[in-house]
Amino acid sequence: MSLLVVGSIAFDSIKTPDTSIEDTLGGSSVYFCLAAGFFAPVRLVGVVGEDFPKEHIRMLEERGIDASGLEVVEGGETFRWSGEYFENMNKRETLSVSLNVLEDFEPKIPDNFRDSEFVFLANAAPSTQLSVLDQVENPKFVMADTMDLWIQTQQADLKDLFKKIDGVVINDDEALLLTDTRNIIEAGKRILDMGPHRVVVKKGEHGALLFTHEKVIPLPAYPLHDVRDPTGAGDSFAGGLMGTLARAGEAEEGNFKGALANAVVVSSYCCEDFGVTRLQRTTSADISRRFEDYKGLLTI
Amino acid sequence: MSLLVVGSIAFDSIKTPDTSIEDTLGGSSVYFCLAAGFFAPVRLVGVVGEDFPKEHIRMLEERGIDASGLEVVEGGETFRWSGEYFENMNKRETLSVSLNVLEDFEPKIPDNFRDSEFVFLANAAPSTQLSVLDQVENPKFVMADTMDLWIQTQQADLKDLFKKIDGVVINDDEALLLTDTRNIIEAGKRILDMGPHRVVVKKGEHGALLFTHEKVIPLPAYPLHDVRDPTGAGDSFAGGLMGTLARAGEAEEGNFKGALANAVVVSSYCCEDFGVTRLQRTTSADISRRFEDYKGLLTI
Repeated sequence: MSLLVVGSIAFDSIKTPDTSIEDTLGGSSVYFCLAAGFFAPVRLVGVVGEDFPKEHIRMLEERGIDASGLEVVEGGETFRWSGEYFENMNKRETLSVSLNVLEDFEPKIPDNFRDSEFVFLANAAPSTQLSVLDQVENPKFVMADTMDLWIQTQQADLKDLFKKIDGVVINDDEALLLTDTRNIIEAGKRILDMGPHRVVVKKGEHGALLFTHEKVIPLPAYPLHDVRDPTGAGDSFAGGLMGTLARAGEAEEGNFKGALANAVVVSSYCCEDFGVTRLQRTTSADISRRFEDYKGLLTI
Repeated sequence: MSLLVVGSIAFDSIKTPDTSIEDTLGGSSVYFCLAAGFFAPVRLVGVVGEDFPKEHIRMLEERGIDASGLEVVEGGETFRWSGEYFENMNKRETLSVSLNVLEDFEPKIPDNFRDSEFVFLANAAPSTQLSVLDQVENPKFVMADTMDLWIQTQQADLKDLFKKIDGVVINDDEALLLTDTRNIIEAGKRILDMGPHRVVVKKGEHGALLFTHEKVIPLPAYPLHDVRDPTGAGDSFAGGLMGTLARAGEAEEGNFKGALANAVVVSSYCCEDFGVTRLQRTTSADISRRFEDYKGLLTI
């Protein structure tokens, strides 16, 4: 079934204790598309500047991503982000952000995307996410990401959004911040009470937790010996999840666990090399193999 | 099969953000015994002072624990520990330690315990753990715990011990400290290289990782809504693990996963109330029910 993502497209500069890389392709919707693309075709809405190379767009299109909703701003520059990872690669610091064309971006959903059944609202101002939601006709399953900035500055809009959507993916720190609690299980339950009936709390190297009104399901991360760059892990997690759900056509609890396992697997590949490079050279066969391995590891 | 534990017996004073409790029954071997006792009879070797109430000993004996290896020092006082938990209950600070009778304790393994097939060396000086090992005739599977203090002060003895035993349980922070690395997967592999062929890295609320020469198996924690007191969680985890292995009579990889699941389950009960109180009122039926629930949560 149709899957729409609205999110950022970026040039990222990334420092880790071992290496650094400049102006590599990134952004939440790019990671999402590459991950979801293993499971279902994706419709992309976003904005770039005139400096954005056409080969990136071709690369996405070759992977079944419909980039016709990509707005190219004449004379504009693409959003740039730079960040640094420390010690154990779990915590990072943003070094600089140049919003550029993202600053005045008001997503317009093309007419032929308005019937999208699965929708992912990648991290953006809740007011922007709400405006996207208004442009989609009758979606079956809408999931959103957010970040600490919006929890601190636009919490009313965020809670308004949460009343109107089906699912939320959120980092553990952000879940605690949003719910003002110290127990992550309590935090997940409080977010359920805000409206969404599926809440996924991401815990980085420690995996994720799915909250439904019936259950709390823990998923460990796939054990990675060599984490080279966790940038985009959360967005590729969301891509693996939403892509699998869109392929299944239903977001029932039964489908959800397999979808989360694919999310774990595809995000594990993402971390194995810098930027999007590992996802680009990952095959569907790789995904299937690691999925079976992961499933076996968890079977008691 | 026979299971021996050598470790501390204590009066604990525990502070959490919500409550505090004084001089409650604790110690690594007590938690271990209560947890392992759900699965197999346990032989206990340890030391207490004259102040140690006989009803505690009776309580252990009623649970199938052979306390005949318990040394009572005339005129001596039992080991006392006090600690405080902060915010999210994951980190704690030791407030005071009175070694008392533990200071000069040299464990003597009674003759009728020397044929023990499964042996758990709870946290103690590696030199003490080595002396216990020397007193056991031909054990089938020996596992040890340790702590940062011994990694920092007796690392040579610790590495000598690791060459002679089958398994290690260790906290994530301590595994990183011991191996001087920042990646927990790398740390586990390096500990395997030190000798033991089963390494379990405990990650508190994030579960545990089992390392063998073939695989790394991640186990999430059982999701707990209300963590009242994590004291003893690591020792009851070890108890659940070793108790299940002793019951099976073999420590093969096939048995290990079920044993780890029991470890997760029994340590989750431990955290639900202060000290040993929750383990005391837990039944085998509770354990079986939560085991099935946990297994189901992990089935993809």
